[in-house]
Amino acid sequence: MTPLPPLRLSHLELGVCDYPEHVPQGCWSEYAQAQKALGLRFVRIAEFAWSRLEPQPGQYEWRWLDEAVETYAAAGLQVVLCTPTAAPPAWLVIQHPEVLPVGRDGRVKTFGSRRHYDPSSSMFREHSRRITRAMAERYGQHAAVVGWQTDNEFGWGDTAQSYSPAALAAFRQWLAERYRTPEALNEAWGNVFWSMEYSAWHQIPLPNGAVAEVNPAHALDFLRFSSDQIAEFQEEQVAILRECSPGRFVTHNYMGFFSGFDHYRTSQCLDFASWDSYPTGTLEAVREWGLAEPGLMLDFARTGHPDVTAFNHDLYRGMVKGPSGAAAAPGFWVMEQQCGPVNWAPSNPLPAKGAVALWTAQAWAHGADVVSYFRWRAATMAQEVLHSGLLRHNGHPDRGYAEVAALDPTPFPIGKVPARVALLHDYESLWLYNMQPHAEGMNYWAQTFAYYRALRSLGMDVDILHPDADLSGYALIVAPALTLMTPGRARHLEAAAEGSALVFGPRTAFRTPSGRTPEEGQFGELGRLVGASLLRYDSLYPGMGQEVAGAGPAPHLASLWAESYEMEGAQTLYRYRGGPLDGESAVIRHGNVTVIGAHGETLITEVLEDLLSRAGLQPTRLPEGVRLSRRGEVTLLQNWSSHAVIWQGQELAPVSARPLQLSEVMA
Amino acid sequence: MTPLPPLRLSHLELGVCDYPEHVPQGCWSEYAQAQKALGLRFVRIAEFAWSRLEPQPGQYEWRWLDEAVETYAAAGLQVVLCTPTAAPPAWLVIQHPEVLPVGRDGRVKTFGSRRHYDPSSSMFREHSRRITRAMAERYGQHAAVVGWQTDNEFGWGDTAQSYSPAALAAFRQWLAERYRTPEALNEAWGNVFWSMEYSAWHQIPLPNGAVAEVNPAHALDFLRFSSDQIAEFQEEQVAILRECSPGRFVTHNYMGFFSGFDHYRTSQCLDFASWDSYPTGTLEAVREWGLAEPGLMLDFARTGHPDVTAFNHDLYRGMVKGPSGAAAAPGFWVMEQQCGPVNWAPSNPLPAKGAVALWTAQAWAHGADVVSYFRWRAATMAQEVLHSGLLRHNGHPDRGYAEVAALDPTPFPIGKVPARVALLHDYESLWLYNMQPHAEGMNYWAQTFAYYRALRSLGMDVDILHPDADLSGYALIVAPALTLMTPGRARHLEAAAEGSALVFGPRTAFRTPSGRTPEEGQFGELGRLVGASLLRYDSLYPGMGQEVAGAGPAPHLASLWAESYEMEGAQTLYRYRGGPLDGESAVIRHGNVTVIGAHGETLITEVLEDLLSRAGLQPTRLPEGVRLSRRGEVTLLQNWSSHAVIWQGQELAPVSARPLQLSEVMA
Amino acid sequence: MTPLPPLRLSHLELGVCDYPEHVPQGCWSEYAQAQKALGLRFVRIAEFAWSRLEPQPGQYEWRWLDEAVETYAAAGLQVVLCTPTAAPPAWLVIQHPEVLPVGRDGRVKTFGSRRHYDPSSSMFREHSRRITRAMAERYGQHAAVVGWQTDNEFGWGDTAQSYSPAALAAFRQWLAERYRTPEALNEAWGNVFWSMEYSAWHQIPLPNGAVAEVNPAHALDFLRFSSDQIAEFQEEQVAILRECSPGRFVTHNYMGFFSGFDHYRTSQCLDFASWDSYPTGTLEAVREWGLAEPGLMLDFARTGHPDVTAFNHDLYRGMVKGPSGAAAAPGFWVMEQQCGPVNWAPSNPLPAKGAVALWTAQAWAHGADVVSYFRWRAATMAQEVLHSGLLRHNGHPDRGYAEVAALDPTPFPIGKVPARVALLHDYESLWLYNMQPHAEGMNYWAQTFAYYRALRSLGMDVDILHPDADLSGYALIVAPALTLMTPGRARHLEAAAEGSALVFGPRTAFRTPSGRTPEEGQFGELGRLVGASLLRYDSLYPGMGQEVAGAGPAPHLASLWAESYEMEGAQTLYRYRGGPLDGESAVIRHGNVTVIGAHGETLITEVLEDLLSRAGLQPTRLPEGVRLSRRGEVTLLQNWSSHAVIWQGQELAPVSARPLQLSEVMA
Repeated sequence: MTPLPPLRLSHLELGVCDYPEHVPQGCWSEYAQAQKALGLRFVRIAEFAWSRLEPQPGQYEWRWLDEAVETYAAAGLQVVLCTPTAAPPAWLVIQHPEVLPVGRDGRVKTFGSRRHYDPSSSMFREHSRRITRAMAERYGQHAAVVGWQTDNEFGWGDTAQSYSPAALAAFRQWLAERYRTPEALNEAWGNVFWSMEYSAWHQIPLPNGAVAEVNPAHALDFLRFSSDQIAEFQEEQVAILRECSPGRFVTHNYMGFFSGFDHYRTSQCLDFASWDSYPTGTLEAVREWGLAEPGLMLDFARTGHPDVTAFNHDLYRGMVKGPSGAAAAPGFWVMEQQCGPVNWAPSNPLPAKGAVALWTAQAWAHGADVVSYFRWRAATMAQEVLHSGLLRHNGHPDRGYAEVAALDPTPFPIGKVPARVALLHDYESLWLYNMQPHAEGMNYWAQTFAYYRALRSLGMDVDILHPDADLSGYALIVAPALTLMTPGRARHLEAAAEGSALVFGPRTAFRTPSGRTPEEGQFGELGRLVGASLLRYDSLYPGMGQEVAGAGPAPHLASLWAESYEMEGAQTLYRYRGGPLDGESAVIRHGNVTVIGAHGETLITEVLEDLLSRAGLQPTRLPEGVRLSRRGEVTLLQNWSSHAVIWQGQELAPVSARPLQLSEVMA
Repeated sequence: MTPLPPLRLSHLELGVCDYPEHVPQGCWSEYAQAQKALGLRFVRIAEFAWSRLEPQPGQYEWRWLDEAVETYAAAGLQVVLCTPTAAPPAWLVIQHPEVLPVGRDGRVKTFGSRRHYDPSSSMFREHSRRITRAMAERYGQHAAVVGWQTDNEFGWGDTAQSYSPAALAAFRQWLAERYRTPEALNEAWGNVFWSMEYSAWHQIPLPNGAVAEVNPAHALDFLRFSSDQIAEFQEEQVAILRECSPGRFVTHNYMGFFSGFDHYRTSQCLDFASWDSYPTGTLEAVREWGLAEPGLMLDFARTGHPDVTAFNHDLYRGMVKGPSGAAAAPGFWVMEQQCGPVNWAPSNPLPAKGAVALWTAQAWAHGADVVSYFRWRAATMAQEVLHSGLLRHNGHPDRGYAEVAALDPTPFPIGKVPARVALLHDYESLWLYNMQPHAEGMNYWAQTFAYYRALRSLGMDVDILHPDADLSGYALIVAPALTLMTPGRARHLEAAAEGSALVFGPRTAFRTPSGRTPEEGQFGELGRLVGASLLRYDSLYPGMGQEVAGAGPAPHLASLWAESYEMEGAQTLYRYRGGPLDGESAVIRHGNVTVIGAHGETLITEVLEDLLSRAGLQPTRLPEGVRLSRRGEVTLLQNWSSHAVIWQGQELAPVSARPLQLSEVMA
Repeated sequence: MTPLPPLRLSHLELGVCDYPEHVPQGCWSEYAQAQKALGLRFVRIAEFAWSRLEPQPGQYEWRWLDEAVETYAAAGLQVVLCTPTAAPPAWLVIQHPEVLPVGRDGRVKTFGSRRHYDPSSSMFREHSRRITRAMAERYGQHAAVVGWQTDNEFGWGDTAQSYSPAALAAFRQWLAERYRTPEALNEAWGNVFWSMEYSAWHQIPLPNGAVAEVNPAHALDFLRFSSDQIAEFQEEQVAILRECSPGRFVTHNYMGFFSGFDHYRTSQCLDFASWDSYPTGTLEAVREWGLAEPGLMLDFARTGHPDVTAFNHDLYRGMVKGPSGAAAAPGFWVMEQQCGPVNWAPSNPLPAKGAVALWTAQAWAHGADVVSYFRWRAATMAQEVLHSGLLRHNGHPDRGYAEVAALDPTPFPIGKVPARVALLHDYESLWLYNMQPHAEGMNYWAQTFAYYRALRSLGMDVDILHPDADLSGYALIVAPALTLMTPGRARHLEAAAEGSALVFGPRTAFRTPSGRTPEEGQFGELGRLVGASLLRYDSLYPGMGQEVAGAGPAPHLASLWAESYEMEGAQTLYRYRGGPLDGESAVIRHGNVTVIGAHGETLITEVLEDLLSRAGLQPTRLPEGVRLSRRGEVTLLQNWSSHAVIWQGQELAPVSARPLQLSEVMA
């Protein structure tokens, strides 16, 4: 057992995802050398290689991977290996059909793409541990192997939940452990509501086949349970990797904005989180959330929207807290970085010239220590023929290759993102919110992103944190949609408010951990801190507006959601004008705590700007597309627009990023 | 056995839906007294209480309900009890999984929300009778119990049809009774068409799994059968209630515009119909039917559209005809009346100030004797956390509470709606029409509602009746979409035409009772009365228009549908101008009978206005949002607009209603 | 055995689809005589008559059909009989439930409409042969019987694929025969990609239940297999018909644009192809493909778009190549010709006056020898009550009847369509393209139709051919979307380019026969001919444009798709201007070969116009709605607009066609 010394990175490092099994072996050495020559340091391999590693049950074929690892090592690359469990081989599915997952529609999902496994299947768990151990024993102490990725993109293809008999049995067990008695569950869920009370665990069904919507408490616990299944599945792999591959980091490559499981929960066993960044494809979120400005999709079609990608960087940077015992780098990885067009969005535009360099620089500025491009050479077969790589189908360099070649990582030193603003994010709140959105066009992400975008448009760096995380040291803490509240969380926020300004958005503290609303109504346990209680909420049709007026001359227009408050100590900053809430309180303040009850971008921005100024954070209104991101002593000045922008007297080239030293910023 | 003396109401009475099992018992007495103090007379309870009444098979728990009933009685309230069958308990589903319904997709619908039962299940029928009898025996003669609601909202959650093995067996039996021989069924259905002939009953499948659309005759009979299953299910309960609870009324709470079963058929055993009125949520119908005016949804977002709600009042008022032997009040009930925002539409705006009072007054004016608000206190748990009540989540009065408190019911005496216009409505015509709409955007409801709305915009009161009902005494009878015709119905309409003017819309008498078209073509059996036959029909794309010109100067524009006629005695009032029907007859008249073949709101209004004038009914063109509804000697003048309207020299406040005495109207 | 002498047609002949079993036998003789009097020669019968021919297993009832055939013969009509297999009787389904097909969702499709059979079911195959032989033996040599239609509209109701156990077994067998070893299949499909490798045939699933998209190679082979199942099913019937009914033609009635199987493959055993032409319903394609001009749907709502219908005429004319040994007429048939409104589109407008005559004349001009109207009398029952016929429901002539009566077929002589332009069409390319469209709004048909429409708007006649067909003699060969390339096909095109100009659209030669992309990238095997290779492709959002500039003054605007090339001998005709492809090659030429990489209607038209001029084909820009179609010596001048058009000094009446003799055209 020879643990590897920890990775010590001084500046941004680059990597690539490679699939040697997809190309003739004759190419391997040439490709590895080319990767090294391009300035890459890491190569991630073996992601979907189970059928090649174990072509028949129990018959391992290590030779090809041995040679691949040696080839990369010989070229001076460091290897990240993957457990190949995201793509179980056909023979396993035939031997044990019960490993297949079952969809929400009750149909078994068959072999033929990927992620066709049920994490609740004990048989699959056994095979997962077996193949993980076999790989870890063979490669875990190879000098070139510096880390592991577990599985791949948990939840992809709507697989975060399985509705199988195994899941049902495990869910009942999980509930029994959580609630101890059916009576306690009935009370927590409020099952009296529609005669939904249970007198025995075996009466509880999965939540996918009822006449109409199930109790949100039922659905919420099933999501928690399913998260736990993924977490346990991963923990089993991680334990084996830690045992057999000491000193190597273990991470997982998450997806942007994916909401199907609690990423905080599943990340507890990791050294750091990674994610797969595809800015043009993820831009679809803008369409989905109905962001206000017409034409926004077209404006950012070739770069993605800066804040959409930045949000995920900030999210995954904050996913694993504190120092781990492992040899991990302190920052996170972009495990897959788009470097040309993707193939999976409805439309897949070519990235703008400069976009790959811009994305890379932004990733660094938001805390990425390593950016690893997907993929080396575009696949010439199967589902992703239309996806790009650094090399084109014919093996010639594609446009992204040139941008990577031109990258100089030395101006991108490793350092801390000096965020003074924290944004609180919570998957359980997300689930509850989105189960019952109540207003067409509203959802947790749209609400949360509006606050994030406002902060970034004001030039702020933002840490995205779990609400129960350590919140000390922030000047401003923003909780856009913290709908689930617990007594402990309320006390935690009260403590945080002693030293920081806090901002809450609508629907805060509207639900208890089992999806009820407090008997004393919103804000329940948080009421003491907020100094107010909910009066009523209004759900506006798309196209309806509600005026909100403060001290300023012009009123703001809220859309989709407006809630008003009864004062219990707080004071009113803005009131509704006209409509059924006329005269009622829209934005209130109680000591360090501000609550914004109306959904309106200009209102949110104005309130945040005022608070940031009071906190001495010097907010600056940035033009659309222009963004500032800070890491260590460097400020990355970015222009995501397809045209040049004049900002503070300097011309920013289209689709470009420029690292400014502290001295430049001060000047 | 002591039958209760009949309820004698002299004016509108109010009630509330309450769920004592949802709140701590400590609140019951306070709440009951508050209800009484608010001016309420009735309280409806025990709607979904099966799991509390019978927590284990055969073990009844009456104590809590005993105490609840006594508490209401002590406060001076009268109680409406519900059979709790809309929410069978979990243990029953586990014991007898065959009680679960099966969806159109062939999947069993599981426990977890409500209405998870198959009315064709003999096992469920047995349990339905058992729990009904147990409740009726215990409470049927309690002095405070004045009536019963069976089950709840038949058909909610798409449960009007079940595609279970039990349904299949019962459907075949039903067909055998209806047709006697497969040959007769084949002939009625026209099964020769695609070789669909049967030689034995067991060959007939349910209509939910075929390659493409099934024979409409097949689908139509399955809808009839399913209606009959619901009717029989209810009749079993009603028989037990009549036996054990003499003198109490029995009703059912229907839903607005619900089309899944024949409400006339299922209402035969009731004393009167009730319905659940949610004006803001039901406004979605306006969107669904593509009503012409842009912005209509926004204009009425906070009140609902007056005619949408009025239609359902008029529909359910006419559902049960003639004096019943029971102790029922003569009018109908609004069993659940929205008194704040609902939670189930895509968007759920706050009602305008005054809306609850307006809705209540309108309900009365359309014949409601009792308006019962849903619900006392907003639920703090489960599926309807976001639904309002008279009390907010925290138990404080919500806005609707204040409007109810301010209501004085004395200006709203019980009386007869003096409608001189009848509108004919028929679920079988609806089903046939909507199975084969033939024109994108057209359907039975859109066509029917256009006539109803035109009548109300002209100030008319309208009785909505089954086409085979007694039609004597009306000045004008309007059948907007009576597509199904029988010989008997044709004779009935001929008789009605002797004393009344009749108006038919497009597609009248296009289909026989088994969904065929008459061999002599439209109008088949009705041809003699109409004095014409169908020439051809045109289905217009949305956005296409067809001019229709009469004697007046300006032509009308028809949309979506236009049909023309060959004269066989009738005369032409309007002709098509341009297009493929150029010069052909669009509106024709034969004695007392007018047929409007084109779908166009201004055309319909003009024809109806002329006929109303001829009949001496003095039509008045009302501004959008202003409506007149008459009951007894009182005319209720309403303004549903969010702004004040000047009408006939008087200013009508926004969202308001004012009862005018006859003298005021005459002046 | 007395083979019939071949049909010898000198000019267009007319026919009708009739269903004597749908009307009382008393009408038969009158109807047959009326058909003859109307000028019809052919009558197609017995299409869905299985339940009448064999009401009980093995008990044939021939009498009624005997009499029907004799009645038509007595009236001087010639009969086309159908094998009735598209509507298996109920008793067969009950006896052998395994004959039912299974849908993509895994559910068995039940009895109740039509096409409820699985062509992979050996039991159904046996019954198909049995009923075919029984009919053929009874009527095969009747003097009035001149031909056969097999089954009806293969693939209707989404039945081109079945996902049954029988299909699975047959698919595995089919794969084993195609690939010999699982290893070969793995290599061809690229199954290494996501660990999708198989080690035994029984591991291969159907492609309908996977977590996400399956390997396109998997889906492609399943489509090929399913095509083969249909082809084999038909071949069995054809062999029996040839044996028992010598000298009669055998055809099948296909549907417009249907893409579910390879029509070339299934047509190999036919004498000629037929198709069912419903121009107003098929206009939906225009909506589906998002054709650029707003209002196009409304403009052609009552005629359909000329090129939409023309495409299918040209497609089916070219479906069966070369002289067959059978007694078939040389051209194709329109087996079902719309003669009034259809019932199956979302909206079903009345055809314009003159449309039936225009459709008939166009069909002739595009090579139809026979146009057979659907149907004699509108059905008074079942699924198609709202579909028209030559007679209305009441048996009176409908508008189309009058147009047919006025038709004089003598100006429409049989002759060859003198097309000098060939357009290449390939179902396998279609499948691959549409599996991975990559650009919202783009698909194979939209791209292919854009080229076809451009050619017709320039006045060209077009042969639509399989890419591997004989291509000699054409001045211009256009392959709009030939994405699948084989070495043989590349050589074939190289040979064709020696004598003809060739034009390729985007994505040409992008895929190999197993759905991979060539290792050398697009154009793979075709690269030598094209003199270039793919540089990159851009997928544009709807609403984004990309400028393309050539020698002309004004640039063109491309939408949805743009690809650029690296020159390997070719020269650049047009370049991209602006955007990420700025300066790169958009249209290139290498000898006789032109490649258009951008999707833009004006660009395509300009390039084609130039090539047609160079080839001496004298292109003429026609106004929208005006079209020229040539057959033999006659040019049919058509105006599809609803208004008169002045063209070359002459006024063309709305919705009209006029045959011009060569002399008129020259003048």
